[in-house]
Amino acid sequence: MKLVALAGGVGGAKMAYGFAQTLPPHQLTIIVNTGDDFEHFGLYICPDLDTVCYTLAGLANPITGWGRANETWQAMQNIKRLGGPDWFKLGDQDLGTHLERTRRLKQGDRLSEITRDFCRAWGIGPTVLPMSDQPVRTIVETDQGDLPFQEYFVQRRCEPRVRGFRFEGLDQASPAPGTQEALEAADAIVICPSNPWVSIDPILHLFGWRSREETPWFGPRRPPIVAVSPLIAGQAVKGPAAKMFAELGIEPSVLAIVDHYRWLLNGIVVDSSDSEIAKQIKIPTLLTDILMQSAADRIRLAREIMEFIESLS
Amino acid sequence: MKLVALAGGVGGAKMAYGFAQTLPPHQLTIIVNTGDDFEHFGLYICPDLDTVCYTLAGLANPITGWGRANETWQAMQNIKRLGGPDWFKLGDQDLGTHLERTRRLKQGDRLSEITRDFCRAWGIGPTVLPMSDQPVRTIVETDQGDLPFQEYFVQRRCEPRVRGFRFEGLDQASPAPGTQEALEAADAIVICPSNPWVSIDPILHLFGWRSREETPWFGPRRPPIVAVSPLIAGQAVKGPAAKMFAELGIEPSVLAIVDHYRWLLNGIVVDSSDSEIAKQIKIPTLLTDILMQSAADRIRLAREIMEFIESLS
Repeated sequence: MKLVALAGGVGGAKMAYGFAQTLPPHQLTIIVNTGDDFEHFGLYICPDLDTVCYTLAGLANPITGWGRANETWQAMQNIKRLGGPDWFKLGDQDLGTHLERTRRLKQGDRLSEITRDFCRAWGIGPTVLPMSDQPVRTIVETDQGDLPFQEYFVQRRCEPRVRGFRFEGLDQASPAPGTQEALEAADAIVICPSNPWVSIDPILHLFGWRSREETPWFGPRRPPIVAVSPLIAGQAVKGPAAKMFAELGIEPSVLAIVDHYRWLLNGIVVDSSDSEIAKQIKIPTLLTDILMQSAADRIRLAREIMEFIESLS
Repeated sequence: MKLVALAGGVGGAKMAYGFAQTLPPHQLTIIVNTGDDFEHFGLYICPDLDTVCYTLAGLANPITGWGRANETWQAMQNIKRLGGPDWFKLGDQDLGTHLERTRRLKQGDRLSEITRDFCRAWGIGPTVLPMSDQPVRTIVETDQGDLPFQEYFVQRRCEPRVRGFRFEGLDQASPAPGTQEALEAADAIVICPSNPWVSIDPILHLFGWRSREETPWFGPRRPPIVAVSPLIAGQAVKGPAAKMFAELGIEPSVLAIVDHYRWLLNGIVVDSSDSEIAKQIKIPTLLTDILMQSAADRIRLAREIMEFIESLS
């Protein structure tokens, strides 16, 4: 089975790790949101891409889920002493990634090429693709004005009330080289348990997948698409997904997730604790433990999802 | 006595430290070469300015003379793993300086303002000024072509044979705010034991001090100017000064130093080991131990130079 996973940050990275331990490398492509990317201190930072790569390489901080294991904070401490902004935590090892990526972008290399080379250096087998080589920027429209994503997410700790989202640069951006080929060859597509509004929607909108009518397809056949719920019992495992649904007037639940992706999904993966509400879901549903606390959890879930996908056809 | 010191990197920083321990803060201004500055990994790096500031703040690496004490190299190790260039060593603490400087330059602050704020944060009393807020770039003309300074100095280890130097951007640059006032108020100017060709000449040329005829003055009176030889027994204490003199067909010695600054100097400070050759010097000469191995050496030398300057008037 050739699988394409669409991923944001921590949840997406854990799910991707599960598939990476289950499928041969050439059968897995992970397409990662770049709407969170931003420039800070002159560096080009790709939080989701780095979280996915660090996780796949076994370099991620197991406690936070983002950043590097055994990280040090010397640069940040000096920045703080100099009165600089310290709301976005840049670890010393992590800085090496941003520095080398920035250097290569400035010399004209594409983000997808750089990501390919980084993955090779880190010993990552599956193909990791940024959704686009062109900048797409998620803007969170809030009661306190429009905020670039990292400002909303990290600096303001998701406190402003959300009114909507837009993805600047989307019309000028195209999917990165390799995404189309991966989607054409895919036997299944998995939407990882990432935030639908700010991690997955940027990818779907970039592909032109915005409604049943508008959704073009990249190849002659459309493989099954399955989403893993980022909500368990109405709560996000991590991040503001539930808060965003609520502020947009939508009851946060697996039903909201199914509805969000309604023109795309052939199946949904839901936590066992949602078994009661899952009875209202009208598409094939896999009920299982979807909270990934250990590496073993990730692998088990990946295997169950692949069996579920096979049962759909 | 109000003193202005003109400084490059390690030698200049040690000399400046000596004066900083000897004079009240408001009586000392250090004007630092920025011809070595360069952009690397998207960061704006000022090697001489940082060496002077780290030294004055007691943060410098006592072994190398440049960089930070107790430095770590996590970012650099990751850059190396990713196949990035590692010829210019960027320590983790040091990176904090470059990151915050770059951030502030990008938001429109001037290098002199940023340096002032950094000095305040690091508890540095004397005034440290970059020679200019505009970019001036030292180009080393060699038998292997024209090389930006850091490429010649660090990446090529000063191996190419020198044919000449030029300072790009000099005509569009002006002395940084505060330099003119400091020079007007100065009771003496000390040219630190830095490389005449690539550390001091950029400053002198920026001021328009290129020959006896061409040397304008900033104020109504010209204070005595004294140089401390960067050569001892024909050898540079550090760096390529002696090699540069030789490759330009000039015997490297204190005589060459006196000749290099001939239209400016009222006195020269020479190492005791050069006492024989010093007999040929036709301007007032202070013979003393000028090798600064300890903090005590720096302070003693600074005091002797101040006494020497007083003896000149």
